Amino acid sequence: MPGYNHLFIPGPTNVPEKVRMAMNVSMQDMRAPDFPELTKPLFEKVAKVFRNTTGRVFLYPSSGTGAWESAIQNTLKPGDKVLMSRFGQFSHLWADMAARLGLDVDLIECEWGEGVPVEKYAEKLKADTGHEYKAVFATHNETATGVTSDIKGVRDALDAAGHPALLMVDGVSSIGSIAFDQDAWGVDCAVSGSQKGFMLPAGLGILSVSGKALEANKDAGFGRCFFAWADQIANNDNGYFPYTPATQLLRGLDVSCDMLLEEGLENIWARHNRLATGVRKAVEAWGLRVCAADPKWYSDTVSAIVVPEEHDARHVIARAYEQYNTSLGTGLAKVMGKVFRIGHLGWMNEGMVTTAVSVAEMSMIDVGFKIEPGTGIGATIRHFTDTASQSAAKAA
Amino acid sequence: MPGYNHLFIPGPTNVPEKVRMAMNVSMQDMRAPDFPELTKPLFEKVAKVFRNTTGRVFLYPSSGTGAWESAIQNTLKPGDKVLMSRFGQFSHLWADMAARLGLDVDLIECEWGEGVPVEKYAEKLKADTGHEYKAVFATHNETATGVTSDIKGVRDALDAAGHPALLMVDGVSSIGSIAFDQDAWGVDCAVSGSQKGFMLPAGLGILSVSGKALEANKDAGFGRCFFAWADQIANNDNGYFPYTPATQLLRGLDVSCDMLLEEGLENIWARHNRLATGVRKAVEAWGLRVCAADPKWYSDTVSAIVVPEEHDARHVIARAYEQYNTSLGTGLAKVMGKVFRIGHLGWMNEGMVTTAVSVAEMSMIDVGFKIEPGTGIGATIRHFTDTASQSAAKAA
Amino acid sequence: MPGYNHLFIPGPTNVPEKVRMAMNVSMQDMRAPDFPELTKPLFEKVAKVFRNTTGRVFLYPSSGTGAWESAIQNTLKPGDKVLMSRFGQFSHLWADMAARLGLDVDLIECEWGEGVPVEKYAEKLKADTGHEYKAVFATHNETATGVTSDIKGVRDALDAAGHPALLMVDGVSSIGSIAFDQDAWGVDCAVSGSQKGFMLPAGLGILSVSGKALEANKDAGFGRCFFAWADQIANNDNGYFPYTPATQLLRGLDVSCDMLLEEGLENIWARHNRLATGVRKAVEAWGLRVCAADPKWYSDTVSAIVVPEEHDARHVIARAYEQYNTSLGTGLAKVMGKVFRIGHLGWMNEGMVTTAVSVAEMSMIDVGFKIEPGTGIGATIRHFTDTASQSAAKAA
Amino acid sequence: MPGYNHLFIPGPTNVPEKVRMAMNVSMQDMRAPDFPELTKPLFEKVAKVFRNTTGRVFLYPSSGTGAWESAIQNTLKPGDKVLMSRFGQFSHLWADMAARLGLDVDLIECEWGEGVPVEKYAEKLKADTGHEYKAVFATHNETATGVTSDIKGVRDALDAAGHPALLMVDGVSSIGSIAFDQDAWGVDCAVSGSQKGFMLPAGLGILSVSGKALEANKDAGFGRCFFAWADQIANNDNGYFPYTPATQLLRGLDVSCDMLLEEGLENIWARHNRLATGVRKAVEAWGLRVCAADPKWYSDTVSAIVVPEEHDARHVIARAYEQYNTSLGTGLAKVMGKVFRIGHLGWMNEGMVTTAVSVAEMSMIDVGFKIEPGTGIGATIRHFTDTASQSAAKAA
Repeated sequence: MPGYNHLFIPGPTNVPEKVRMAMNVSMQDMRAPDFPELTKPLFEKVAKVFRNTTGRVFLYPSSGTGAWESAIQNTLKPGDKVLMSRFGQFSHLWADMAARLGLDVDLIECEWGEGVPVEKYAEKLKADTGHEYKAVFATHNETATGVTSDIKGVRDALDAAGHPALLMVDGVSSIGSIAFDQDAWGVDCAVSGSQKGFMLPAGLGILSVSGKALEANKDAGFGRCFFAWADQIANNDNGYFPYTPATQLLRGLDVSCDMLLEEGLENIWARHNRLATGVRKAVEAWGLRVCAADPKWYSDTVSAIVVPEEHDARHVIARAYEQYNTSLGTGLAKVMGKVFRIGHLGWMNEGMVTTAVSVAEMSMIDVGFKIEPGTGIGATIRHFTDTASQSAAKAA
Repeated sequence: MPGYNHLFIPGPTNVPEKVRMAMNVSMQDMRAPDFPELTKPLFEKVAKVFRNTTGRVFLYPSSGTGAWESAIQNTLKPGDKVLMSRFGQFSHLWADMAARLGLDVDLIECEWGEGVPVEKYAEKLKADTGHEYKAVFATHNETATGVTSDIKGVRDALDAAGHPALLMVDGVSSIGSIAFDQDAWGVDCAVSGSQKGFMLPAGLGILSVSGKALEANKDAGFGRCFFAWADQIANNDNGYFPYTPATQLLRGLDVSCDMLLEEGLENIWARHNRLATGVRKAVEAWGLRVCAADPKWYSDTVSAIVVPEEHDARHVIARAYEQYNTSLGTGLAKVMGKVFRIGHLGWMNEGMVTTAVSVAEMSMIDVGFKIEPGTGIGATIRHFTDTASQSAAKAA
Repeated sequence: MPGYNHLFIPGPTNVPEKVRMAMNVSMQDMRAPDFPELTKPLFEKVAKVFRNTTGRVFLYPSSGTGAWESAIQNTLKPGDKVLMSRFGQFSHLWADMAARLGLDVDLIECEWGEGVPVEKYAEKLKADTGHEYKAVFATHNETATGVTSDIKGVRDALDAAGHPALLMVDGVSSIGSIAFDQDAWGVDCAVSGSQKGFMLPAGLGILSVSGKALEANKDAGFGRCFFAWADQIANNDNGYFPYTPATQLLRGLDVSCDMLLEEGLENIWARHNRLATGVRKAVEAWGLRVCAADPKWYSDTVSAIVVPEEHDARHVIARAYEQYNTSLGTGLAKVMGKVFRIGHLGWMNEGMVTTAVSVAEMSMIDVGFKIEPGTGIGATIRHFTDTASQSAAKAA
Repeated sequence: MPGYNHLFIPGPTNVPEKVRMAMNVSMQDMRAPDFPELTKPLFEKVAKVFRNTTGRVFLYPSSGTGAWESAIQNTLKPGDKVLMSRFGQFSHLWADMAARLGLDVDLIECEWGEGVPVEKYAEKLKADTGHEYKAVFATHNETATGVTSDIKGVRDALDAAGHPALLMVDGVSSIGSIAFDQDAWGVDCAVSGSQKGFMLPAGLGILSVSGKALEANKDAGFGRCFFAWADQIANNDNGYFPYTPATQLLRGLDVSCDMLLEEGLENIWARHNRLATGVRKAVEAWGLRVCAADPKWYSDTVSAIVVPEEHDARHVIARAYEQYNTSLGTGLAKVMGKVFRIGHLGWMNEGMVTTAVSVAEMSMIDVGFKIEPGTGIGATIRHFTDTASQSAAKAA
């Protein structure tokens, strides 16, 4: 099909030109004496993106799912009791993994569209005076429903209860895009992947762990090897890896971290809020709603848009793909057919968002939604022009 | 700046991924025995895009300007009388070149916004019973004003007068995008470049010439070397070039021609019309007008949008670039500050056009135009949804 | 440093231009309806490279190490008795993994430089009438010492004993380069990675399993998730993956498999033998020897060259890297300082091998080896010219 | 064919990875306000490579041939008398161009293998008391024969005669590789292209002109447009171009100039001498000779190797290409079949030269030359090890 494919899924996200250039490399020896000149500063840059100054980061040729598994295997033991909550496909999958790996999962079921039930966590933690919970899990940004949870709130609940459990956070679709502060929030394992806020192709699992997590690692009881922290640490400290790393992606990561740090994390978060609000204004103007049940849970990285009962969201997605060469995110599991998703994270700007909103609008009209052309995108444009920086031209 | 740069100038245009891949090559020997396996079919493919079956094409490491010069140098003599018309910056520049190269230019001045004055050409040709005009020049698509001229009409004028003059056409911003038929229209030299409808980076001048032009070449009287057809022909016939060709671009051209021919020229023309109409609908909805003075001259590759007198179009362009990372075309020469241009040619689809229109709308609002958010882009969306192909989903 | 870096490590290997082009892509939706058009044929192509017609392949964003782990986790249970042998760093690491994952490893120690002790395997298997061994492990090509083992021999030993144990083979540095036949040899799990014979950057663990292994999977007893076959199968059957795959590498793998199958596996094996023999001729001419203790164990993918006692092989490697911009493989663990390695696998031809041999020769001379310039490379050249295909020119 | 294609023609040369990365770009607006941030420093960097502080450089989407034409058109008039010499295909072609453009060429014929006849130039210039010669032309490095001429000597001849003629130098295959000093040697027009010492793909003609040449431009009498300096100057001064520039190549040029200046011109010249001497040592050891008739004319960028009368050099070249995937340079015109050429310029190091020499040796043996394997390459290796920098290891 002619013209660019427009990519508005919540990952893989659009890869910046500079990153793409950096990955256009011939291979190199990952045991060369100057290889650490790349890797040592890289570990530091990645840690900065997580705001992690107490621990360290691990870079696996893997995915976010692999980093989830690494976090569990390296800090817990089979049979350990953990507190989790489920309110979407990705919180579901992590809970499923925990159970399959042999953890004793106390799983709080929530409506899809809600976030981490901080109050219930607080109650349970307060009640757990014997400190049976070894870890508390929280999905920072549930990618399936576009819900961002209050990780700071979970930390506060732990602190209020004086509870020593580890805090494990899935930040795959949040870190590098929306506010995240590993140090301030006391996150022990923060999981991410290359293909979201880090603006790279898929292929890296990125795990940032606290000093406390490193301490917990000593007693962890899973047979493990590929994801073993000890093997990584022994090699990473010298700038190397226990097995062949994905150097092409590391080259890209080096550049993408530079870009993130140069733009500034707060600026990135503000940008994502502005762009996401632009999308939500359109949703409202279309007379629709996002899946997130409360504004406090609105995600600035992905919006899951609920279609009216008489429609099937898959038709919208198919139309966008086939007619407009645009990839929207599908509804997963429970919300399949009920929502379509617009990913607005990573290497994203207003012009790209106007495509996303316009194509969504056209696709909905095409498949029979009663929408007046221009209403949704008009609201988006109004938001962008209302909040745009003052230009000299305008001032003059 | 975060996010893609959105490129809506009338060239260089957006390079398709496949073409970009094809140019990501190491160098090769342009005298290798298998080099003609690339070049021989390539000459044929390029000729197909021009619909030229009587003559041949030349591929210069150069630009459209170079191909203009090649056309003149290789078919005419200093002092030859030629008929030209001027109605924009590019028709101006070609006329300027003709004069500087020593041709005796009979130049018809038109308003900027008009096209080739076919009737005046017809009169003059009829009157030229001595056949003093050796060539008639026509700018098919005046990129500065967004005006497409009637080349078939010029051919008809020549035929009606029984005039043997060569027909020289600047198709830099038309060929490969909108209707062009070298054989049917009897075009003797059709000039193009790599960075427009051919969807490549700049760097190639592409010239397609008729059998009649090749005949005229024998008596051409310019001292010439770099652009000399004879040198090209002697080498091209064997699949080689008289000096080092730009092989990286030739690799890209091979793929881009395949893409053009696979999509089908008529389909491409229809796509450009649909996209361009989407832009013009927005212009109308904004209460503005395009520079082209009559619908018959509307260009489907570029729209020059006239701003109200109280505004400076450069502010719109600057705003788009600085705030929205979007490149719009500036007004050139006479129309500087009076128009901004949206290039909608080449590797372009609806989603891209919605960005162009949305960013133009936002930029105009930002610099003080009285425009209701959503009006222009709403009209664009209405056009696209009205004319979109029926989807299974919709039908169902 | 000026000029190309010359890469002669046994992986990552040199990436072909076509593969590199294919990876120069923007991102895409791994849930798009047409994504299976890439993946379904890809699974088949990869299986062809393994010569696996009874089972299936798994493609993990991972590494060969991850594929090792996947093989164990998905076919065995903690406490299962397995037969292994150790004769180099990679056979060591796999044995180490097996033990750490909780297998009961019966480990036969061999000299580094020897291969799988087929006779001892045969004895032990014959003696194991109770079929306590659940699996037999064999490192096909020990990358650390340049030793290729007789996998067919291991299969014969199993068959002779009528033993039902699974046959697990590490083919990371052999498959796609030297003779391997999963069907004929009855290999149940064949492990590989992207960065060797598959000629890609590191980042994929590739695992090819037999029907028998799939059967064994049903009773496997490891808690597992990231590497779980069941999750892969459920998704792969539809052309998708249970988590975000490394699409950039899959695009590359698609092209590299095409290249392997087009050249023909037997032709590739013959090419590797010819190139490797060229290297070994040089080693002999230098008065040195390779680490492989017997010609039957010579590896056609990597040669580990033993330096005289008075020298440190690391000096040779450092010299090659610093002075000649050439990456040779270092000696690992036990053989550190005692060998340097030349990887001659993958996208390799005679011209590249002459660089490897010449640079090794220059580096050895530079650091004080008594070698007459031209002796080693002369022997290489003699071998290549003696075995080169007849050219028309020569014949004439 | 498997393995890299080895490129040892005297251009296009091998493109460095960093340059290749830099060209892997999407298109951009060449009229953007920040475009001069690229171009203005770029003009300065290019001038530094020429050592031109008095004039300016021009960057044409073109080739070296185009830059030749630009130099003539912009400084001379038809009928102007010029002094030239011919001793190879490229000095022939420039003389041919001069004649075809209408200059009155006083052409000194030399043997192919000789260089600019400085003494004859001196005589003629001294005799030309009326200063009829408007320009003196010299091919710095005759690519066809591997001959480097004494440009400083030509300047001295001009000075000794007190002659005001312009000094025009073809430095296409010398500049950026071997000693060249435009200021010190008083070169008025120095011609180059992108695809040799500048280490880029073909596609740019690079012309560096002195202040005196700019002065001469005012009276130049050729009708010209594409190559007109005035149009370039008017735009370049603001960082722009009179027509669409080849931005992809400009991006690459920016990086390649950085690399040249970082390595240091003197270091580059020394490197080329060391590599070229390595090749010539092989030629001598083979019992052959280079085309250059005297050591003072040996070119450090390309060696043309004369084959014995009973052999046809084309067989060597064909063999290298077909059997060893290696591109050697063919003999052009008069020396076709008599020489094959090894280009050893640009992004080149010892490892690459060993491939060139080894493949040449193998190819000659294959087609029936009586050469002992290892003799030529042995001499090359001896030279490299004799002249290699002292390594710590060796010193120790």
